[in-house]
Amino acid sequence: MTRNIQPITLEDVQTAHKRIAPIVKKSPLIYSPALSEIAGTSIYLKLENLNVSGSFKIRGAANKMLSLTPEQQKRGVTTFSTGNFGMSVAYLAKELGIEAIICISGRVPKAKVELIRDMGAQIEIIGQSQDDAQEYSYQLEKEHGLTVIHPFDDPEVIAGQGTIGLELLEDVPELDTVIGGLSGGGLHSGLGVALKSIEPDLQLLGVSTARGATMYESIKQGKPVSVQEQDTLADSLLGGIGENNQYTFNMVQQYVDEIILLDEEAFAEGMNYMLEKHRMIIEGAAASGIGAILHEKVNLGSSVAVIISGCSVDTSVIMDIANRNRSGIFR
Amino acid sequence: MTRNIQPITLEDVQTAHKRIAPIVKKSPLIYSPALSEIAGTSIYLKLENLNVSGSFKIRGAANKMLSLTPEQQKRGVTTFSTGNFGMSVAYLAKELGIEAIICISGRVPKAKVELIRDMGAQIEIIGQSQDDAQEYSYQLEKEHGLTVIHPFDDPEVIAGQGTIGLELLEDVPELDTVIGGLSGGGLHSGLGVALKSIEPDLQLLGVSTARGATMYESIKQGKPVSVQEQDTLADSLLGGIGENNQYTFNMVQQYVDEIILLDEEAFAEGMNYMLEKHRMIIEGAAASGIGAILHEKVNLGSSVAVIISGCSVDTSVIMDIANRNRSGIFR
Repeated sequence: MTRNIQPITLEDVQTAHKRIAPIVKKSPLIYSPALSEIAGTSIYLKLENLNVSGSFKIRGAANKMLSLTPEQQKRGVTTFSTGNFGMSVAYLAKELGIEAIICISGRVPKAKVELIRDMGAQIEIIGQSQDDAQEYSYQLEKEHGLTVIHPFDDPEVIAGQGTIGLELLEDVPELDTVIGGLSGGGLHSGLGVALKSIEPDLQLLGVSTARGATMYESIKQGKPVSVQEQDTLADSLLGGIGENNQYTFNMVQQYVDEIILLDEEAFAEGMNYMLEKHRMIIEGAAASGIGAILHEKVNLGSSVAVIISGCSVDTSVIMDIANRNRSGIFR
Repeated sequence: MTRNIQPITLEDVQTAHKRIAPIVKKSPLIYSPALSEIAGTSIYLKLENLNVSGSFKIRGAANKMLSLTPEQQKRGVTTFSTGNFGMSVAYLAKELGIEAIICISGRVPKAKVELIRDMGAQIEIIGQSQDDAQEYSYQLEKEHGLTVIHPFDDPEVIAGQGTIGLELLEDVPELDTVIGGLSGGGLHSGLGVALKSIEPDLQLLGVSTARGATMYESIKQGKPVSVQEQDTLADSLLGGIGENNQYTFNMVQQYVDEIILLDEEAFAEGMNYMLEKHRMIIEGAAASGIGAILHEKVNLGSSVAVIISGCSVDTSVIMDIANRNRSGIFR
């Protein structure tokens, strides 16, 4: 299949930043004294977990939904993410008065379904797998004219995620390393465009889970592949990149300097660090940068930003990690 | 005793803001969708818990320490707070290269002592009460020329805390209500000057613990008094205001529109709200504004800022509250 794919540019990211400004406020950046001391360099944490929807995904979703024509907005949108992206679309649907149908499979836990329903979105429970849900989203598009919002492989979504890069360089112009969890690649594609267009020598690092590193394997094999997945603390990093991936595979290939694989202990230590030192509860995927640094998996520059991507995790998981820490399992 | 007390002005707060800017970054302000919906108004949270020292106290401490003459800085400083103020002085001492002696009583738990020692400060363990520690601080001043930094009843400390008010009005010009935990009154004195000099009609609310409301009783009786104290989740709100209180008693009298007393359940609910909705661990005192709102103790305006003052609380306390919530004790 040959498609005429237009590259995403810095200008697209800048346009996205202006577009989403009324609804997505600049996220906080804090200095982490303890992590900086451990790593012997200056480390900042970009707190995307503090976005109103609990993750950075709201940036891409907002840019996409606000880019639609009035006619498209009137017809509504649909997506097939049950995680942070679905939450963000649900939040925006309510805020912007755009109808949204979140398609999910019958296997999604009730608690998660309720969270999205609480946000005010309509939910369609379809089939028994994520693929069924995705298929139904596209059926809604075809038959009812709703616009499918792909969670990562979409130019507006990518440009939206890239706005993090603009905010980072605004706050820390001397930044030379950015690290964060890598899954479908929407975040790193956007970061890559924004950061490397302005600072070509900046180092962009991705962290994936050893229990399902689709993008890592795909890059290694030179084409989108599927991998076997296992349960992981970094569940937001699971999921395929799509056989017909149009944007993020190429962009990650182009922009990401290194992909690091982490084991469960490192994710747990990252989560525990945030709990103990910054008193914040973050999900495993969001702890990937800190986990990698604590496990000395990365060569850092002299000014580092870690993307703390989201906070969607059950309190019991954190309590379990805190208990393990109290019994001295971690260093 | 007659003293010629110069009032603290908006200009003092503005000067403080410029003075501390290199070391105290603007703290994040986030919108709280869930609390806004519960209260039927717009509620923002000022995240002072995310300051590098874990509380707003760093503002006042920084303004004081940076106001000292080079000669005074060389001789060092001393304080007698074991809580957030002591932590802030210890942090700044290290950052600014100023020697600091934190005087504490033998009854202070080892874990707390270690935290302050980790920050790099020198510790003197003196006597068996906070009064003994305070006395020793003044002795160090008299005999060795160190400057005592009073945790709240000091013009530079008050002006420093007031910088929160400037940041609030910068971010939310239409703000009409500010609420936060009230103890010695340093925070509310500073907030009062800053906020009411700019917006005289703005409502400033204080929240104290029913288990030791010294300022509340003092205001009621028209002079500084002592009260019996009991253990409370809001331990940072305990402590006297000093028989010879020079600044904060009068300023709280002048600026604070209402003082609300909360019980333990309300503090716990506030902490639990932050844990569940914003995934942050905060101490009881910091949860006072949220607790008051959840318990419908306050008449709010249409644009409200809640000061989330700090995060100094043992993880086990939070785990206990989370467990109680899971067993359905809270609404």
